[in-house]
Amino acid sequence: MNKQIILVKRPEGLPDASTWKLREIPVPEPKEGEVLIKQHYISLDPAMRGWLREAKSYIEPVSLGEVMRSGSVGEVIRANKHPKFKVGDYLSGWGGVQQYVVTEGKNFFKVDADFASLPMYIGTLGMPGMTAYFGILRVGELKEGDIVLVSGAAGAVGSLVGQIAKIKGCRVVGIAGGKEKCDYLVNELGFDAAIDYKSENIYSALKQHCPKGVDVFFDNVGGEILDAALAHLRMNARIVICGAISQYNTTEKIKGPSNYLSLLVNRATMRGMVVFDFAQDYGEAMSQYAQWLKEGKIKSKEDVYEGIENFHETFMRLFSGDKKGKLVLKVSE
Amino acid sequence: MNKQIILVKRPEGLPDASTWKLREIPVPEPKEGEVLIKQHYISLDPAMRGWLREAKSYIEPVSLGEVMRSGSVGEVIRANKHPKFKVGDYLSGWGGVQQYVVTEGKNFFKVDADFASLPMYIGTLGMPGMTAYFGILRVGELKEGDIVLVSGAAGAVGSLVGQIAKIKGCRVVGIAGGKEKCDYLVNELGFDAAIDYKSENIYSALKQHCPKGVDVFFDNVGGEILDAALAHLRMNARIVICGAISQYNTTEKIKGPSNYLSLLVNRATMRGMVVFDFAQDYGEAMSQYAQWLKEGKIKSKEDVYEGIENFHETFMRLFSGDKKGKLVLKVSE
Repeated sequence: MNKQIILVKRPEGLPDASTWKLREIPVPEPKEGEVLIKQHYISLDPAMRGWLREAKSYIEPVSLGEVMRSGSVGEVIRANKHPKFKVGDYLSGWGGVQQYVVTEGKNFFKVDADFASLPMYIGTLGMPGMTAYFGILRVGELKEGDIVLVSGAAGAVGSLVGQIAKIKGCRVVGIAGGKEKCDYLVNELGFDAAIDYKSENIYSALKQHCPKGVDVFFDNVGGEILDAALAHLRMNARIVICGAISQYNTTEKIKGPSNYLSLLVNRATMRGMVVFDFAQDYGEAMSQYAQWLKEGKIKSKEDVYEGIENFHETFMRLFSGDKKGKLVLKVSE
Repeated sequence: MNKQIILVKRPEGLPDASTWKLREIPVPEPKEGEVLIKQHYISLDPAMRGWLREAKSYIEPVSLGEVMRSGSVGEVIRANKHPKFKVGDYLSGWGGVQQYVVTEGKNFFKVDADFASLPMYIGTLGMPGMTAYFGILRVGELKEGDIVLVSGAAGAVGSLVGQIAKIKGCRVVGIAGGKEKCDYLVNELGFDAAIDYKSENIYSALKQHCPKGVDVFFDNVGGEILDAALAHLRMNARIVICGAISQYNTTEKIKGPSNYLSLLVNRATMRGMVVFDFAQDYGEAMSQYAQWLKEGKIKSKEDVYEGIENFHETFMRLFSGDKKGKLVLKVSE
């Protein structure tokens, strides 16, 4: 049987037990030109919260009654005259939150399970990695010597953004929740400083750690943190709007950045990004990450939970912050 | 005697009668290398409200006890061995809100009173003109065929932004307050449409007039209007943050744009500007305006009030909207 997580109700505020249901259906058969993938790991990302919303966005919302959309990685266990993939291949792509998926393989690509662990292909070598790479280098127009601030810094994207900026010769300050995460950023990932938004006043901490202000702010969080960063910009600063996890579950109006006139004062730019725009250059990022990983310049950390039945409670760790690194759900052996 | 407007109190909210006082001092004598200018016209601009604030900004605030800073235009009536300027020259520059000013002439330049009226040199051929020109062309990266939205569209800057965009082959929609201003935009300045924010719902009006969305939004207003524009962006849209007159007098927190995540959805850019950054290229804009004016492609409208004693109440017209075009105060005969 194939266990699937189906979207059954659009949440207001935090998703809860009634948002999804678990469904079991027979494992599908691949038709000619298709493969059957046994999925091993499902990617859990803040962006998925956005896909639950009915409003127009950069991607169609997940429909009610549909398998919840997600990135995934797994192994081909049956192939029906597929032109590219064969049994035993490991594929990463958009398999959704389910144990098996049949596909023509359009949105899947082959990964090398010997080079990196499977979870890494939905983390550093997957969407979060691509987001970090193109977000900080292209959208953020990173330059050597920049003072870089990252929110959600211990998360899948943020931790890579900071490490890339360190490789490029920048001063990097991360914002994260809790002492443990902050210690991790500084002691293990080599950030120059970390701010614990749960226990510190962000304004004064920014004054302390970025006395000259910030050249690039990579924002995954929004809300008060975005406002504080706006109050500490340098001239010609760039703000990359990658996400706003603090606002995704609000039932009120999203908190707009009150300090946005700092853009004027500092001739600064705030730009939104969606990683899919860089799809044609993913190869460049993959090779670069592969090299950095081999050289030990990038550390990749995945936090793996088990059991498709635990999808909802594991997903909620994105919003409680109770996780370390890239959040992954193992859905089969 | 020289009548001057002196800043005596930083306002909270709207400036009032206690913000400035009128002072009379003897007309100063120019020292060697200086000229004495009899000022004819003072420029009244929304930006002046910002200069009253003590906070760090793109320019030093006006100090308490100082003559209120402003653009101005007048005639040299005495010259003391000045290397560049002589009696009878008309100069535009930063003379402040006073009837006479003595200066070395560093921030003044000579204007041709035969080519254009003096008030035009603090309007279309002054700071507002430069702001519109560089704001829409450089910061807004205007391209032929763009759908352009301008707020404060009947004002000194906005009316020029729209006219430039029309010259460049764009569809132009203006937002202004009241039927008279809206009619003026469409019937006299050639805008394609105008939205009266006082009587129309901006969201539905934008849906009607910009059904495909907006490529460039030039914002002088902020607040609800910025939010509405954000909800109607096209892909890769540019938002020029030139000002936020709706927020300048607030005693509460500035209203940040709740819809800022539209930047992400639409891969859009919001960029702040300060006209002084383009000072080295003012000559380019001046020649271009001169040509457009000669060809009748740009209409310049100044709303001139009289009497330095009426500075405060005239200045307040910027915020009530009770004016037509560039607001100017005549301070001497």
